[in-house]
Amino acid sequence: MSNAVNDSVDDSVDDGTIDISRRRLLGTVGAAGATGLLIGAAGGAGIAAAGDGSGTADASALTSVGATEVMFHGKHQAGITTPLQARGHLVAFDLAPGAGRKEAAALLRRWSATAKAVMAGRPSTGDTGIALDAGPSSLTVTFGFGRSFFDRTGLTARRPQQLDPLPAFSSDALDPKRSEGDLWVQIGADDALVAFHALRALQKDADGAARVRWQMNGFNRSAGATARPMTARNLMGQVDGTGNPKPTDADFDRRIFVPRGGQGAAGAQEWMAGGSYAVVRRIRMLLDDWEKLSLEKQEKVIGRRKADGAPLTGGSETTPLDLDKFGPDGKTVIPDNAHSRISAPEQNGGAAMLRRPFSFHDGIAADGTPDAGLLFVCWQADPLRGFVPVQRKLDRGDALSPFVRHEASGLFAVPGGAAEGEYVGQRLLES
Amino acid sequence: MSNAVNDSVDDSVDDGTIDISRRRLLGTVGAAGATGLLIGAAGGAGIAAAGDGSGTADASALTSVGATEVMFHGKHQAGITTPLQARGHLVAFDLAPGAGRKEAAALLRRWSATAKAVMAGRPSTGDTGIALDAGPSSLTVTFGFGRSFFDRTGLTARRPQQLDPLPAFSSDALDPKRSEGDLWVQIGADDALVAFHALRALQKDADGAARVRWQMNGFNRSAGATARPMTARNLMGQVDGTGNPKPTDADFDRRIFVPRGGQGAAGAQEWMAGGSYAVVRRIRMLLDDWEKLSLEKQEKVIGRRKADGAPLTGGSETTPLDLDKFGPDGKTVIPDNAHSRISAPEQNGGAAMLRRPFSFHDGIAADGTPDAGLLFVCWQADPLRGFVPVQRKLDRGDALSPFVRHEASGLFAVPGGAAEGEYVGQRLLES
Repeated sequence: MSNAVNDSVDDSVDDGTIDISRRRLLGTVGAAGATGLLIGAAGGAGIAAAGDGSGTADASALTSVGATEVMFHGKHQAGITTPLQARGHLVAFDLAPGAGRKEAAALLRRWSATAKAVMAGRPSTGDTGIALDAGPSSLTVTFGFGRSFFDRTGLTARRPQQLDPLPAFSSDALDPKRSEGDLWVQIGADDALVAFHALRALQKDADGAARVRWQMNGFNRSAGATARPMTARNLMGQVDGTGNPKPTDADFDRRIFVPRGGQGAAGAQEWMAGGSYAVVRRIRMLLDDWEKLSLEKQEKVIGRRKADGAPLTGGSETTPLDLDKFGPDGKTVIPDNAHSRISAPEQNGGAAMLRRPFSFHDGIAADGTPDAGLLFVCWQADPLRGFVPVQRKLDRGDALSPFVRHEASGLFAVPGGAAEGEYVGQRLLES
Repeated sequence: MSNAVNDSVDDSVDDGTIDISRRRLLGTVGAAGATGLLIGAAGGAGIAAAGDGSGTADASALTSVGATEVMFHGKHQAGITTPLQARGHLVAFDLAPGAGRKEAAALLRRWSATAKAVMAGRPSTGDTGIALDAGPSSLTVTFGFGRSFFDRTGLTARRPQQLDPLPAFSSDALDPKRSEGDLWVQIGADDALVAFHALRALQKDADGAARVRWQMNGFNRSAGATARPMTARNLMGQVDGTGNPKPTDADFDRRIFVPRGGQGAAGAQEWMAGGSYAVVRRIRMLLDDWEKLSLEKQEKVIGRRKADGAPLTGGSETTPLDLDKFGPDGKTVIPDNAHSRISAPEQNGGAAMLRRPFSFHDGIAADGTPDAGLLFVCWQADPLRGFVPVQRKLDRGDALSPFVRHEASGLFAVPGGAAEGEYVGQRLLES
């Protein structure tokens, strides 16, 4: 089965800049099965599972868990439009005392080499063996820079305005020790040992140059757990992600990725071309309170039916909300404070962020309440046009607010993908 | 696809007591795919994946992630010989103040009804919706009683001698708050949301009758991450579980399950017929220290090759250890303190326990070290002939000891499976 030529790749959203659409499977990859998909870093949709929603995609998704490989090189970094993986690690690092731009550049070079190897199912330097036997398993590794990174590396003058601190929200209960950080890494894979293996390898690479500031674990539905690819559910039981922009939308790239030339001062962000900004929030769900609500009340809080995610105004999951429909009681069917109304793209000048979260569950607290919720990760070309206006509106009047608590927050500049021979962030750190 | 008749069940180890080998798929199960397996509670081997290791088993394992259903009713409880699942929760409860035998019986009745429903992919009472869309996903729920349970329920006279406290081991650093407990529940599933859904449902059932004492999360390789079913690896990168007894072994049942009539005083354990004893240990791995060892030193600590788990004396993973083979240096090739030598079944009167662990990773501690390791769960008819003698030997001279720390411990009597119309533990609580 090894060295099989893979012809059944998906149709990636590739502008042709870099040839990522077809390549020969490596021996180590092919060993994991002959039916693997190759996913371009710019391909796929940020929803529950691989495939296009048709019946035929199902078999591929089910038979390619281990063999599916996501490309490291590309216009964009992997892990942004890659389909949600079953397992995720988020980890922030602070540069070690004394480490500056040179050490950061060397670290990003090591990290990029490791990410490229493990995403292809190959061993890393000094490999621990934890991922042996398994295929690439859709592993992605994504690197970002926090606001403080630019001060630490003498690059303050080149810090994008988009990294200005997020405004404070009244529902925030942020723990600074679990927030922000010089560097941020997102790891996702469809196998927990493959993901852990990557985390350990990257932590080892950082030795001496950077130290872990915080680290969180998350999960999504397993590939094949549903009969066909479906929008994910969160731990409140709600279908979550219906309104996400699709890579096939005409304005998807403009909303999610930084254009060539950057925003703001001309050329100031050229190194961010093809990049995106990630807002990361640890959103604790107060599940005991939530689950005390009747199904009817839960559905009014959200404005959608729990069973299938359809708007309370009718139709199916993808039917647009009818925000102006009134019920016999003279009130809008989708309440004025319903979460789906307030966050609706049409209420916010179009969806300007791509939500790509993991659920988390860190056990049950001493009082019996689960320490569980959403590792919310959203992607946008500009957080001031993506996350911030929506969160500001939610903060004022969202019926869901009493049931969630934002416990940690991070904002990171995620550079464009590395070209062959390049490492992530090179255009910032070496020019 | 719903209501499909399933004919491709695996060959379960079924003694014919209860008809668990073939049944019509429920609508809710069939909706998750037409290729589902049904696994009898007594079927399968406690290793990495479903199937018998032949090539044909692979396709089934890969296409049945969501649809595979494990039977609740059976001679034994599910989750003992069931193939390892990708996700696991261990949770211990203490009975609430004032709760006794009557409340415990009512709780086990509720728990059994919930377990039966969610294992079949059906909703539980007051369902949260978290598992909607997904199939049963090999969910198992297993119930056990701790030593203290018998005092709390006025059943001290019927407490099996096998629940006598384990001896103290020199490598123990046990946290009593995360050890033991009146009641123990093991949850496993191939989908993280399905597992969490079951955990929440069972916690809700306990409300008023029992409170969570401790709870731990674990994981194993995802179905389909490897090209064919393989023995699992642990977070040290070692193949782990090679020497496990197989359900096809002639003496498997005698070693793992309590026989009719029980041990000790005649009839004293009749309610444990078909049951087993679970030893649960949270074994922290000191991965930073471990990974500093060279591959050669790691292999000498274990006595097996890391790449494929074969003994250092040659062959493949399943080749017996040659414990008497000497190297050119005049020493045994498998060192005298090698972990595999000390724990070898042939050194301990035959393997008398079935190891069925989950790995755990609860993040990275403040000092940068991962809080990770093994949620060791082993099953045996009698812990004094299974876990205890092996652990006593390991405690004295295992080369692996400096790299692990036992942080929590539990010992639970896991009654036999419930017959149709019965709940787990009924034979103890109502007779």
